[in-house]
Amino acid sequence: MLNTSVSAASEWAGVVGPEYVIVDPSELRAAETATFATSHRVPAIVRPANRAEVQECLRIANRSGTPVYPVSSGKNWGYGSRVPPSDGCVLLDLGRMNRIVDFSEEMAYVTLEPGVTQAQLYAFLEARGSRLWMDSTGASPHCSLIGNTMERGFGHTPYGDHFDHVCGLEVVLPDGDVVETGFARFASAQAAPLYRWGLGPALDGLFSQSNFGIVTRMTLWLMPAPEYFQAYYFRTPSDSGLAGLIDALRPLRMDGTIRSASHIANDYKVLSALEQYPWRETAGRTPLRGPVLDQLRRKLKIGAWNGSGALYGTRGQVKEARRLLKRNLKGKASALEFLDDRKLEFASRFAPLYERISGWNLTRMLAVLKPVYGLMKGIPTDHPLFSTYWRKRTVPPESMDPDRDRCGLIWCSPMAPNDGFHAQHITALATGLVLGHGFEPAISLTAITERTLACIISLTYDRDVPGEDQRAMACYHDLLETLARDGYYSYRLSIGSMSSMSQPGSYSALLQRLKQTVDPNGVLAPARYVPESAGKAAWR
Amino acid sequence: MLNTSVSAASEWAGVVGPEYVIVDPSELRAAETATFATSHRVPAIVRPANRAEVQECLRIANRSGTPVYPVSSGKNWGYGSRVPPSDGCVLLDLGRMNRIVDFSEEMAYVTLEPGVTQAQLYAFLEARGSRLWMDSTGASPHCSLIGNTMERGFGHTPYGDHFDHVCGLEVVLPDGDVVETGFARFASAQAAPLYRWGLGPALDGLFSQSNFGIVTRMTLWLMPAPEYFQAYYFRTPSDSGLAGLIDALRPLRMDGTIRSASHIANDYKVLSALEQYPWRETAGRTPLRGPVLDQLRRKLKIGAWNGSGALYGTRGQVKEARRLLKRNLKGKASALEFLDDRKLEFASRFAPLYERISGWNLTRMLAVLKPVYGLMKGIPTDHPLFSTYWRKRTVPPESMDPDRDRCGLIWCSPMAPNDGFHAQHITALATGLVLGHGFEPAISLTAITERTLACIISLTYDRDVPGEDQRAMACYHDLLETLARDGYYSYRLSIGSMSSMSQPGSYSALLQRLKQTVDPNGVLAPARYVPESAGKAAWR
Repeated sequence: MLNTSVSAASEWAGVVGPEYVIVDPSELRAAETATFATSHRVPAIVRPANRAEVQECLRIANRSGTPVYPVSSGKNWGYGSRVPPSDGCVLLDLGRMNRIVDFSEEMAYVTLEPGVTQAQLYAFLEARGSRLWMDSTGASPHCSLIGNTMERGFGHTPYGDHFDHVCGLEVVLPDGDVVETGFARFASAQAAPLYRWGLGPALDGLFSQSNFGIVTRMTLWLMPAPEYFQAYYFRTPSDSGLAGLIDALRPLRMDGTIRSASHIANDYKVLSALEQYPWRETAGRTPLRGPVLDQLRRKLKIGAWNGSGALYGTRGQVKEARRLLKRNLKGKASALEFLDDRKLEFASRFAPLYERISGWNLTRMLAVLKPVYGLMKGIPTDHPLFSTYWRKRTVPPESMDPDRDRCGLIWCSPMAPNDGFHAQHITALATGLVLGHGFEPAISLTAITERTLACIISLTYDRDVPGEDQRAMACYHDLLETLARDGYYSYRLSIGSMSSMSQPGSYSALLQRLKQTVDPNGVLAPARYVPESAGKAAWR
Repeated sequence: MLNTSVSAASEWAGVVGPEYVIVDPSELRAAETATFATSHRVPAIVRPANRAEVQECLRIANRSGTPVYPVSSGKNWGYGSRVPPSDGCVLLDLGRMNRIVDFSEEMAYVTLEPGVTQAQLYAFLEARGSRLWMDSTGASPHCSLIGNTMERGFGHTPYGDHFDHVCGLEVVLPDGDVVETGFARFASAQAAPLYRWGLGPALDGLFSQSNFGIVTRMTLWLMPAPEYFQAYYFRTPSDSGLAGLIDALRPLRMDGTIRSASHIANDYKVLSALEQYPWRETAGRTPLRGPVLDQLRRKLKIGAWNGSGALYGTRGQVKEARRLLKRNLKGKASALEFLDDRKLEFASRFAPLYERISGWNLTRMLAVLKPVYGLMKGIPTDHPLFSTYWRKRTVPPESMDPDRDRCGLIWCSPMAPNDGFHAQHITALATGLVLGHGFEPAISLTAITERTLACIISLTYDRDVPGEDQRAMACYHDLLETLARDGYYSYRLSIGSMSSMSQPGSYSALLQRLKQTVDPNGVLAPARYVPESAGKAAWR
């Protein structure tokens, strides 16, 4: 295996150039590092410049029997960062392929390569004075759009379900062949960047959360900026208020009054966005609970559950949506507030004055509010990264990097019905379990579709504390199992847990047959979402 | 082959019961009949009662080497009705599997089997006094919901893109194995009927427009009825007005003001919905054009292009949408009119009076208007079937059946960008070409997504006129080729033309590899959307 890799490495150097084959031990160790304990080794990093080089790399992988694992930006934080789900994979880093290859203001789309980041697309649109908005995740401005979309990540505008707003994938298959999905397979098809299904079987879904091909190009739909934008915020003081909120919002999400994903976060989640762990006040005890938590809640005006969302449209449309939102949340939410650009500007200017009068630290609140507000307009931010330093005993550095800084972060992301009973049940279950393991259950619920809530449970810890890696992973697995017992399954998995989905049966068998067909040598991202067949796994 | 079939037939009888294996020649001839010339023979019709029987039937097909072709209701009119795209397939008629197996008013979905028709679901919802609306195609009330969805058909409400509003497919694979897609593969997954992508590769797309499996169950999302509904109608007197209309509507479709597919039909299309061919006035000459057409247009108040669509929401939302629609269509559309339940009721009551005063046959207009109006509320209708009798010299019977009545109908359905230039270009191209072949180019444009227009060109003729079958098919093929040359490809194909998509190349090769994997014996719907590999086609 090692010999094969070495000979493959020289072949790869011939394709991408020796400077783009990285074997420097410190860079490799960095690539093997995630926000939780991992053990898989990365023998080399190869950085192709274009599709043709990706094709060649895959051909070499097949000849040499060396598996490869593609990453776009590698910012799969909380789920495994750049670390492959199986050992000995050469990292295929697609970051150099960062061209925006097509753009239409009128038809509202952009076609791009895997290396294009959220920040890059945002700057591209700004530079053009475009009237189009992108959707952004809170993960990082330097997160790849293709990478996040293929992981089926989400954001907070009406285009928040990322995989639902793309088409025309260019895919390099494991054997080096290239296909384009949808109408793009036909010569100069006018609707190629516009219509998802194409003709015949629709294949896009095959290439998300899988190891069936490497997406080297994708068309992403963009949202025309609305005439008017208004964010809303609300909270409920007690845990028991959550169900009512969810049931009050659902009809508005279903009928299109609310076009984007409203986001409801618990006290821990909001707190970890504002501050680091109160080590002094708790005298170093974990997890945070009881009087210290209550005190912080009061000081920072945090509810048990804290909602945010936005209204998009003409002034008339937003006004009517606001009326309906007020009507539905009446008696369910406390402190329903609306915020637009003008009001935010005003608040920023007068924050110091307001603070002196009220004693409330509005400046700090605005520092958190603004990025969240911007996210609802699709503006990338790295602010949410701050919370990964929650349990650290040092202040986050200017340039945050959770992998490097040994921030512990595991995301568990079960999907629940967009329904009050389920919201209450799943969060109560997770809260008790996570506290029991000694961590703070930072939880958010996001109505990413009309009918579903993505429940994101963040396990945040300090990897420098001995034993925490093991305890956090044990907690994560307990969560996965406990939630599954009640029918809540994750929409996305961390690299160490992908085998948890592979119950034997006809579904796994079908996935394995499809994998065997497109990748008979098993060289592309083994074990990524698709269970390995018994023979393959044993062989490795 | 014949012998194999006979032995298989007795095996099938053992599974489904002899009364559900149909070999009566007249019934077989009917099943071999579409709305255009076909030559494929159907040796038997087998009617399984449930999923287990479908599984057994596929196992028999594999053992005997007899290919099967599944139909749900077989109303694939204009594209091939029940006729298989290859010769010698036993028809697997799923019509007996017509149970509605799950329903949730709150979460707005229904789970159903292939035999469930549009009329059946509509009656089901009515009987419950449900506040949910289904989406319906104009094809027929007796059209299968699963059949239409898997062909990626569309309707006219906000849920009009059918395949975009389903999840959790239960699929019998060609070898008889069963898989469920999305979260449904996990035990008692709460989000199974609610979330499309599930975990890992999303497989739904594989089973639409393909021959990779038989969908025996599907969850269909339903739309909460809006507080208020208002339809709108407009027209433009000249062909040159079309581009302006399309460009005026696009921004409203893109920003969600118009949530459903607006529909724009040319004069021929509207005319054929109102009347049969004016044989007398034209002294039997075809195609219809010139003064007789102009006269009919004036008499029936038909524009060159005639639009309809609907607004859904609260009264306030509809009012604002109406304002924006009026603003955008100003100077672009003539006769923009709005219609709601009250106004329609009123017009129906006073039609006779109005007619006496104006001389305009409002009653007839209402007879056409009402079904279209109903369709925008998801109410199934068989009215559009009337137009398939356009060139017949007899009046349509009470119970219309275009297959039986030798109505000629071929639908050509290219997809174009939702853009004025393309709308004008594609319709001009089609109009000239179809008239040149001696038929009337009945054309509609439907903005089935924010960015695309489905351009449906109906070739309607009388199969009893000698030579017309050949002439119409020649016209269809000329259309396909001419439109493809300018980059317009069909979103759906008729059974005789599926090979037109199979250019050799890596995409076809991938489809063939996938087919070979799931159906090594090639027993399921050979040649349906997936090109047959050279060896297979030659063998047959």
